[in-house]
Amino acid sequence: MAVTTVTEEPAYPPTDRTVPTRLRDRARYDRALVHALLDEGYLCHLGYLRDGAPVVLPTLYARRGERLYLHGSTGSRPLRGAAAGPDGEEDGLPVCVTVTHVDGLVLAKSAFHHSVNYRSVMVHGVARRVTDPEEHLAALSALVDHVIPGRAADCRPAAPREAAATAVLALDLREVSAKVRGGGPNEEPEDVSLPYWSGVVPVSVVHGPFLPADGPQPDGPAPDYLTARARP
Amino acid sequence: MAVTTVTEEPAYPPTDRTVPTRLRDRARYDRALVHALLDEGYLCHLGYLRDGAPVVLPTLYARRGERLYLHGSTGSRPLRGAAAGPDGEEDGLPVCVTVTHVDGLVLAKSAFHHSVNYRSVMVHGVARRVTDPEEHLAALSALVDHVIPGRAADCRPAAPREAAATAVLALDLREVSAKVRGGGPNEEPEDVSLPYWSGVVPVSVVHGPFLPADGPQPDGPAPDYLTARARP
Repeated sequence: MAVTTVTEEPAYPPTDRTVPTRLRDRARYDRALVHALLDEGYLCHLGYLRDGAPVVLPTLYARRGERLYLHGSTGSRPLRGAAAGPDGEEDGLPVCVTVTHVDGLVLAKSAFHHSVNYRSVMVHGVARRVTDPEEHLAALSALVDHVIPGRAADCRPAAPREAAATAVLALDLREVSAKVRGGGPNEEPEDVSLPYWSGVVPVSVVHGPFLPADGPQPDGPAPDYLTARARP
Repeated sequence: MAVTTVTEEPAYPPTDRTVPTRLRDRARYDRALVHALLDEGYLCHLGYLRDGAPVVLPTLYARRGERLYLHGSTGSRPLRGAAAGPDGEEDGLPVCVTVTHVDGLVLAKSAFHHSVNYRSVMVHGVARRVTDPEEHLAALSALVDHVIPGRAADCRPAAPREAAATAVLALDLREVSAKVRGGGPNEEPEDVSLPYWSGVVPVSVVHGPFLPADGPQPDGPAPDYLTARARP
């Protein structure tokens, strides 16, 4: 009897809309890189249509395997847009989810070659409302843990009415690309000796020092997940 | 003879799509606040349609008065989409431009009340290709200066063929809203004494220390605009 193994391709298959028309050398389809870029961030920009026009909404996300989760109030517009249609069939919401890390400002001798170092991921697809209660609760925990790993187990879990008020969208990682620009400025050979500063201004995101809220706090040192996330 | 003065309303008039369906107390229309939030950042997420589906592209922007400028290669998709139509008329590209500043992670005693402190601006409208040569060049300088104020005067300006290769989109600030969430966690009264840490993890963006590129650099100290932008 043959042993069947499910192997996942190491890269997302490029499609028409994930292959850029220019600067193709910046595009990446490597699954491990995409996962790492998604796990490093927690804020995405969610694009969807409202009355035929684009809307770009900043919102949190979490990744579990090859699936992204987004959440919002059941009354919010994109979540309503992804609700079940009149025939009970889940219509889904065509979306584009983009996550961007800015790593540096690149100053070249010429205005034209100024640039930005960045790493971004773009996911195209149709987001669907999560209706399975178990997946719904797991996604809510993942959304807390994606921002501060370990926190979901150290707070009061969502009560049934809180979970019911929070809609979750799932978006499978199928049509995905990353874009990466790194390094110093590209210069025209005739510009190299011009008397202007050139180089990179690194950009980084800093978390902390954390500020306890007023009111009762647990005794003892701050939890490990907090010191791991933020400088003290 | 009466003196006519043009007065600008201090707030953007709210519209159907700039009034949120929920958390309305977070919405702001104050022009000065919107300008300040736009001037603090330089990366936006540009939403547009491609073949009827949303695309969200991270890109730089600059503000001049009540106008945003975005740029890209003349061959890039959104810029082509905004090119003049077959009748020579400028069709324009329906867009949504969103700029987001994350200020903190808000940890409540309950998973449900976890939140993020942020300040964002959302601009809806139709972006049009800039065709006036003077405005085009001014926009290219503004795009450099918006990232590092003062830099445009201290690098080689765009040569005619470089300027011609760079398309600029203009988007007027007409249909605009900001959203702001600040402060500590909101707690259910019955949660306040739960033995979980609660508070805020501040998030900030740090620029620097700057790294000169290999090759010839001007003599003397680093330019003022660089030390003003980045910690040394």
